[in-house]
Amino acid sequence: MDRIIECVPNFSEGRDLEKIEKIVECFRGKKGVKLLDYSNDESHNRCVVTVVGDLEPLKNAMIEAIGKAVELIDLTKHEGQHPRMGAVDVIPFIPIRNVSIEEADQLAKETAKEASEKFGLPFFLYEKSASSPERENLAQIRKGQFEGMAEKMKNELLWKPDFGPSTIHPTAGVTAIGARMPLVAYNIKLDTNNLEIANKISKQIRHLSGGFRYCKAIGIELEDRGIVEVSMNLTDYSKTSIYRVFETVKMECKRYGVNVLGSEIVGLVPMQAFVDTAEYYLGLENFSINQVLETRL
Amino acid sequence: MDRIIECVPNFSEGRDLEKIEKIVECFRGKKGVKLLDYSNDESHNRCVVTVVGDLEPLKNAMIEAIGKAVELIDLTKHEGQHPRMGAVDVIPFIPIRNVSIEEADQLAKETAKEASEKFGLPFFLYEKSASSPERENLAQIRKGQFEGMAEKMKNELLWKPDFGPSTIHPTAGVTAIGARMPLVAYNIKLDTNNLEIANKISKQIRHLSGGFRYCKAIGIELEDRGIVEVSMNLTDYSKTSIYRVFETVKMECKRYGVNVLGSEIVGLVPMQAFVDTAEYYLGLENFSINQVLETRL
Repeated sequence: MDRIIECVPNFSEGRDLEKIEKIVECFRGKKGVKLLDYSNDESHNRCVVTVVGDLEPLKNAMIEAIGKAVELIDLTKHEGQHPRMGAVDVIPFIPIRNVSIEEADQLAKETAKEASEKFGLPFFLYEKSASSPERENLAQIRKGQFEGMAEKMKNELLWKPDFGPSTIHPTAGVTAIGARMPLVAYNIKLDTNNLEIANKISKQIRHLSGGFRYCKAIGIELEDRGIVEVSMNLTDYSKTSIYRVFETVKMECKRYGVNVLGSEIVGLVPMQAFVDTAEYYLGLENFSINQVLETRL
Repeated sequence: MDRIIECVPNFSEGRDLEKIEKIVECFRGKKGVKLLDYSNDESHNRCVVTVVGDLEPLKNAMIEAIGKAVELIDLTKHEGQHPRMGAVDVIPFIPIRNVSIEEADQLAKETAKEASEKFGLPFFLYEKSASSPERENLAQIRKGQFEGMAEKMKNELLWKPDFGPSTIHPTAGVTAIGARMPLVAYNIKLDTNNLEIANKISKQIRHLSGGFRYCKAIGIELEDRGIVEVSMNLTDYSKTSIYRVFETVKMECKRYGVNVLGSEIVGLVPMQAFVDTAEYYLGLENFSINQVLETRL
């Protein structure tokens, strides 16, 4: 696959394994679609699927899975600890390789349009696809949950869906769908046990207090190592780069006479983030991610 | 595929497209094997195939292709500009991801052993698999070509094959097989038009004149840009790292008061080379290539 987009739909079924298998089956054995993972939580009564693929095949598989979930999941009988508003609660599309956030946004909208027409399901666009600022945050859309959604949507001025009927599907509720960038969990280790320094630097680099736009950060104590770290979530590594955050933390450390020991990436990271890093440090000219041998697979 | 090895067999047929297709067919539609490229050269009368895969499936496909080439190609009737000694002239195995050079070596030997028994074909191990220093270099093994090989191999002390019969296959000749690292073509641009400086630095960093073991280098003039570059082949990026070569060239440039403008990777590069680069510059702790999302595909 030359172009890769990731989709992480959350289905409101975490207990009936037969139903879960029937939904997940929609992502299996399809050209251009690869199921990476799915896991259900019984107390949450929810299943999270991770699937990657080329744009069109992934969209079609996703629409099929929405149909299956609408058919099998009845929210009027659903109980669980995790807030939810729909049989398919939320569908994020995440650009991974050779796909722009605009294309992910477009795909989310096409999916919503087709699925709303096919299954009579209302969709709210969220995150980068949101049609207004108050719809960017999933929690704000979901407030009131399935039980309160019909009432909430009576306020058409505020809560008319972006696609589909203007009231909930009687058993499948409503779905949030949209594009977002992959999240990179990144920690920088400082050669000190002074948590205050890690916290001060965190404040300097995080968006909330004047730092980089796509950086969330807090100081954390690593007691077993007797050091502290600046613990971050980079919510758009293509705009707030790993190397820029790293070099800035090094720069800020100097005023405290503290060294940076190293850093750590927790969990998965797109290859493009490493290409960006090499491009910066090696001053690479005219490099394309397609030169990485693994992109040919 | 979690583990990837590359194989670039060279077949002595560049004109009969039907025969080429029959050989290449052995790499198609097989689980764990992916044909990336094949191209034939009529004047060379030779076809180069690039295929990647998991170890065992790739070996089996390669053995099948050897059998097909032995069946279809008759070296007694072969003419072309490229030197050759066998129907399958040379088979390099190249570790790409989560595969060691030792495993590639092992795979080359298994392939040679099985294919020699199956098709009565003699094999010389070359490069990292060579059984003696004079067999490391392909040109030295191939000297005399198909026509002179039967005579050359009469000197059993020097030229007894590593696997198979001790004389040539009557129509398919002999084959060289072995493991080698992927080659990274890497150029560093200097902010000067003084070729002498690029040549001096090339001498300092290349193996031949005392530099890094897996580095070949020469100075080259880029007339259109009015600058020079240190043009390199890194023959084992896992031991002579891209970043180490880059930082060393920067360091040497200082004495000439010359700046490094940037660098360039020509052609393909394994993802591991970029992971190594990020690990160095970001001081990454405990990072595994399996954390790169694309390795999950």
